[in-house]
Amino acid sequence: MIDAIGRRARLASRILASSSGAARRAALIQMAERVAAGSSALLKANTADLQQAADEGIRGALLDRLALTEDRVENIAGGLRKVAGLADPVGRQTGGWRMRNGVRLHHVRVPLGVVAVIYEARPNVTADAAGLCIMSGNAVILRGSSYALRSNAAITAALRDGLDQAGLPADGVQLLEDTTREGAKALMQAVEWVDLLVPRGGPGLIASVRSDATVPTVIDGAGNCHVYVDAAADLDMAASIVINSKVDRPGVCNAAETLLVHESVAPEFLPKVAVALEAENVELRGDPLACQLVPIMTEATEDDWTTEYLDLILAVRVVPDIDTAIEHIREYGTGHTEAIVTDDIGVSEQFISAIDTAVVAVNTSTRFTDGEEFGFGAEIGNSTQKLHVRGPMGLESLTSERYVLYGDGQVR
Amino acid sequence: MIDAIGRRARLASRILASSSGAARRAALIQMAERVAAGSSALLKANTADLQQAADEGIRGALLDRLALTEDRVENIAGGLRKVAGLADPVGRQTGGWRMRNGVRLHHVRVPLGVVAVIYEARPNVTADAAGLCIMSGNAVILRGSSYALRSNAAITAALRDGLDQAGLPADGVQLLEDTTREGAKALMQAVEWVDLLVPRGGPGLIASVRSDATVPTVIDGAGNCHVYVDAAADLDMAASIVINSKVDRPGVCNAAETLLVHESVAPEFLPKVAVALEAENVELRGDPLACQLVPIMTEATEDDWTTEYLDLILAVRVVPDIDTAIEHIREYGTGHTEAIVTDDIGVSEQFISAIDTAVVAVNTSTRFTDGEEFGFGAEIGNSTQKLHVRGPMGLESLTSERYVLYGDGQVR
Repeated sequence: MIDAIGRRARLASRILASSSGAARRAALIQMAERVAAGSSALLKANTADLQQAADEGIRGALLDRLALTEDRVENIAGGLRKVAGLADPVGRQTGGWRMRNGVRLHHVRVPLGVVAVIYEARPNVTADAAGLCIMSGNAVILRGSSYALRSNAAITAALRDGLDQAGLPADGVQLLEDTTREGAKALMQAVEWVDLLVPRGGPGLIASVRSDATVPTVIDGAGNCHVYVDAAADLDMAASIVINSKVDRPGVCNAAETLLVHESVAPEFLPKVAVALEAENVELRGDPLACQLVPIMTEATEDDWTTEYLDLILAVRVVPDIDTAIEHIREYGTGHTEAIVTDDIGVSEQFISAIDTAVVAVNTSTRFTDGEEFGFGAEIGNSTQKLHVRGPMGLESLTSERYVLYGDGQVR
Repeated sequence: MIDAIGRRARLASRILASSSGAARRAALIQMAERVAAGSSALLKANTADLQQAADEGIRGALLDRLALTEDRVENIAGGLRKVAGLADPVGRQTGGWRMRNGVRLHHVRVPLGVVAVIYEARPNVTADAAGLCIMSGNAVILRGSSYALRSNAAITAALRDGLDQAGLPADGVQLLEDTTREGAKALMQAVEWVDLLVPRGGPGLIASVRSDATVPTVIDGAGNCHVYVDAAADLDMAASIVINSKVDRPGVCNAAETLLVHESVAPEFLPKVAVALEAENVELRGDPLACQLVPIMTEATEDDWTTEYLDLILAVRVVPDIDTAIEHIREYGTGHTEAIVTDDIGVSEQFISAIDTAVVAVNTSTRFTDGEEFGFGAEIGNSTQKLHVRGPMGLESLTSERYVLYGDGQVR
């Protein structure tokens, strides 16, 4: 099955790669139209998914993420329209020079080809991912969760209709309806067809991609993000950044999980920020020094430094100097986002240079590591690996650069 | 063992990543000095390698690639000096903008960290790869062939001396002395330590990397390169390009392996170019139409379209139109380099757009796909994959871009 889907994707990708930006924009607008026009059918499919998920015992946040409403469908369509308005990366000349023999060398951005996305029970990802892939001239193979199968199939049908209406191949967007583990594994190993796999999911999915995938991947890994409050920090600013980084949306990967505080400001800073965090229902787990300063804290264990809580819990450590903060982050950070609050530019430069992470945030919240905040429109993922791209992945991350040489008969 | 080497490489990589371009340049100059000054020791080690290889039955081109001479040692040193003169990619700002909330976003090039290179019995690769990795701020772990172990160890010692002299960590360059398959496999799976693996070798190595590697890789794959001579080609230019692409250096990946000729010019072109190729001792294997036009050709089989000969053999096919040429290349090309000879710009644009390969050469030889020709100095490899980089890999390919956000307390 994967071969049939892959072959169709490859054929569609060739047409998309040589299509104009205007044609792809028009397709996204049509895709948005079809999603909006098909709202009642989408909601009906989604209701069936929700019913089955509830029957199977799914509850709470998971069920909420699976649910569509008229507003959410309108947001999905709006997301597609927004991506249609972004700058087209395809064909962009990123460099070029004349070789000494007169050959002109052009470095040009081109689509990757066929992108596969494996994700969880969030139907909006179906349209977000498809929109970014089509706009960047790629075909996409979507593999969502079994819980969202009817919703995803309905959205995919609308997206394919939109492509067709716009004169582009409907096979630019395909849904892998085999939601078994074997289906996912076949996709992870379809080296002939898949040019990039982006897994969007929890540690289980990432581990399985790491062990099974033979196609090129960009890992969208965990975000064990730290905020370091330096001796030279503006403490009001620091409190606001710590609180925002932790509580604005604790369940996402760019939320802060550990607070590191320089010992010279800890006695003043920690009791104050602890009160504010308590008021936001944040549970604090501190090292011995932090617990001394804030007795309501429970004592942190090694697990607390390694855990991405994705919850209203914050680990707290008092450090004697920035070097210890850097060592801590090197040991426990996941290469996602690390923040420092300081007015000392020498210190922030040291932090930036020492911390090897996709995003360093100086005097600002970890929550800004986000494709929309960066101006990329929706994001296809957030890379915590170093190869290809780091951080939020927008349209450009779905392309790479190749060379075109123009000569007049030059030989070597 | 790999963990000890990996840990040392990681520590060295951190110092290298924050070192200045001037310090890295100075280190490369010192490395060149030490190689040149150690010439007699290198040659002695190499003699022992050559003796053992000869004893084990190694002959011909393999033995020649293993051999060092005073000239070759001087070339190795010269290569390092040349890389020292290249533009430093580290810290280069590749973009940046002010977010609506006033946060300044900088996109900055940084080293990958630790690069591993697995290669065959070519001692010059030891210094070439190390020079590119150090200049781009990375640490390198080298894993050469058992046949070259003494030569590689001697070169590595000289390189480490040079680093040390320049005040940079000697562990920036390490040689994995375990030349067993298990040693290579451990390196391919050292996900904690290796940020990029570049395999430089034949199909056996590539296959083993594809099946065993769990670290990020850039595949330096086969070059089944084609030259398509269009109906609108300047036939004298076409002959010169075909001959150069085939015979200039038949044993390398950017040599042409198949010639495709438009049927309207084949009767004039093929007999003429066949004579010239014959004079260069090229064996021709043609499809039935080509054999009709040039009776000295032997009949090509399916194997001839798929084989990277790396030898003085050329497969020849007459095609009725450019679409058939494109289909042929899509079927058999390996994404390395594809050339077209034509004076029709519409046709060359169609070819460029339809052929998804790292390098398209219009009216010039396939032989220009080369880091030195491109102005990169030595190359660490030639990517035939689409992720990260395509084509010749210079200093920039050993870096990626991350984000630094500068705020004034902004929160979301």
